[in-house]
Amino acid sequence: MNDVITTILNHRSIRHFEDKPLTDEQIETIVACAQAAATSSFIQAYSIIGVKDKEKKKRLAELTGNQEYVEKNGHFFVFCADLYRHTIMGEKQQKNVTPSLESTEKFMVALIDTSLAAQNAAIAAESLGLGICYIGGIRNNLEMVKELLNIPDRVIPLFGLAVGYPSHITDKKPRLPLEHVYHEDEYEQDMDLYYSQLDKYDQLISNYYDARTNGQRKDRWSEQIVSMLSKQTRMYMKEFIQKNKLDIR
Amino acid sequence: MNDVITTILNHRSIRHFEDKPLTDEQIETIVACAQAAATSSFIQAYSIIGVKDKEKKKRLAELTGNQEYVEKNGHFFVFCADLYRHTIMGEKQQKNVTPSLESTEKFMVALIDTSLAAQNAAIAAESLGLGICYIGGIRNNLEMVKELLNIPDRVIPLFGLAVGYPSHITDKKPRLPLEHVYHEDEYEQDMDLYYSQLDKYDQLISNYYDARTNGQRKDRWSEQIVSMLSKQTRMYMKEFIQKNKLDIR
Repeated sequence: MNDVITTILNHRSIRHFEDKPLTDEQIETIVACAQAAATSSFIQAYSIIGVKDKEKKKRLAELTGNQEYVEKNGHFFVFCADLYRHTIMGEKQQKNVTPSLESTEKFMVALIDTSLAAQNAAIAAESLGLGICYIGGIRNNLEMVKELLNIPDRVIPLFGLAVGYPSHITDKKPRLPLEHVYHEDEYEQDMDLYYSQLDKYDQLISNYYDARTNGQRKDRWSEQIVSMLSKQTRMYMKEFIQKNKLDIR
Repeated sequence: MNDVITTILNHRSIRHFEDKPLTDEQIETIVACAQAAATSSFIQAYSIIGVKDKEKKKRLAELTGNQEYVEKNGHFFVFCADLYRHTIMGEKQQKNVTPSLESTEKFMVALIDTSLAAQNAAIAAESLGLGICYIGGIRNNLEMVKELLNIPDRVIPLFGLAVGYPSHITDKKPRLPLEHVYHEDEYEQDMDLYYSQLDKYDQLISNYYDARTNGQRKDRWSEQIVSMLSKQTRMYMKEFIQKNKLDIR
């Protein structure tokens, strides 16, 4: 077990931060680490917007469903899938890159590129003794987020990353059994085994909530997730993405 | 600069590996690290298939465009966006989760979840002295990859990750200027600045190839990328993804 693996395994989401901003040096290190991630065919299909402006942070907190830690943290990053610069380069060279840029394949590439970069940023931040929380809530209201941050077409904010000095450390949440997520040579489709793994995990999660809440909460994982999925959220996304000239063909 | 940041900044893709398999302990550590990544609303929307079978690895190398290092490495992982287990859980609880699972939003969530997990795996592997290479070529022929690995609906192999002991170390490729990728408070849309940053980077990359190939290659980044984007590749993706009951609404 080395420091890198210890850092990675020690991850938990932090939602309470001290009122202490990151230094410019910390921010640069985190961004440089993001950029060091692999990128599909060297396409580098992402941008990162760091938000320091207090009014904008307050507004972002509202737009993400009143999450206080979007406003109160050491720094707030917005990770964006970005095929805008590729649009510009295509225009400049007068080459038709539109079918590629509008393809589902390149949409996927941009999402993957952005996420690999973000996870490097997250791990780098954690290695500096900082805590992080991914903010998917940024997708609640992308039109307004784009307007607030002056974001052009073919750039989609995917999530925020709140970073800062932790003022309250939470527990780590147990993950699905390794053998349920990791398959060898083919995808395991023995349904008895599949269900028994999920059952075992459901019980583990129920015990976890039970212990954490003094018996007030005992959700099983599969019930929690199915309940979440029963609600239809962010169903505007398809139209929004296509309006932004991505994932069209 | 700590060990974590050093590891992250030291990344380069490795395409030549020694003939030495990873141990089961190494594989388990890498998968455990993948699972430690953040996951959107605790959804855990991915699976990982480790391929040991020699015939399957050989076939995968063919399917990814004859990339030798897909066959010859220490271990080959296939990272899959996975909303299959959520389908099963919904059916078992007789709740209608179909609109959610078919949404563009949940497709994005699955891609992001998978990529965050994969990057943890990559960094963990590199910290163990191993080299890695992401294999996007797996998306050349997803129908056949799915058949080969017995992968159900709503599970999409996104990329492979070849891992092993490096037998040849490549150079690190310079990334876009930090100030081009990282914006403060809003997306920089001063086009003169935008172009000048790209020009500067184009020259850097041209010099990089020049030095690496003894003057035989001097591509500028923007030309390389626009040339790549002028070709329409993997245009079957939209139909394929929707046939797999994802990204439909």
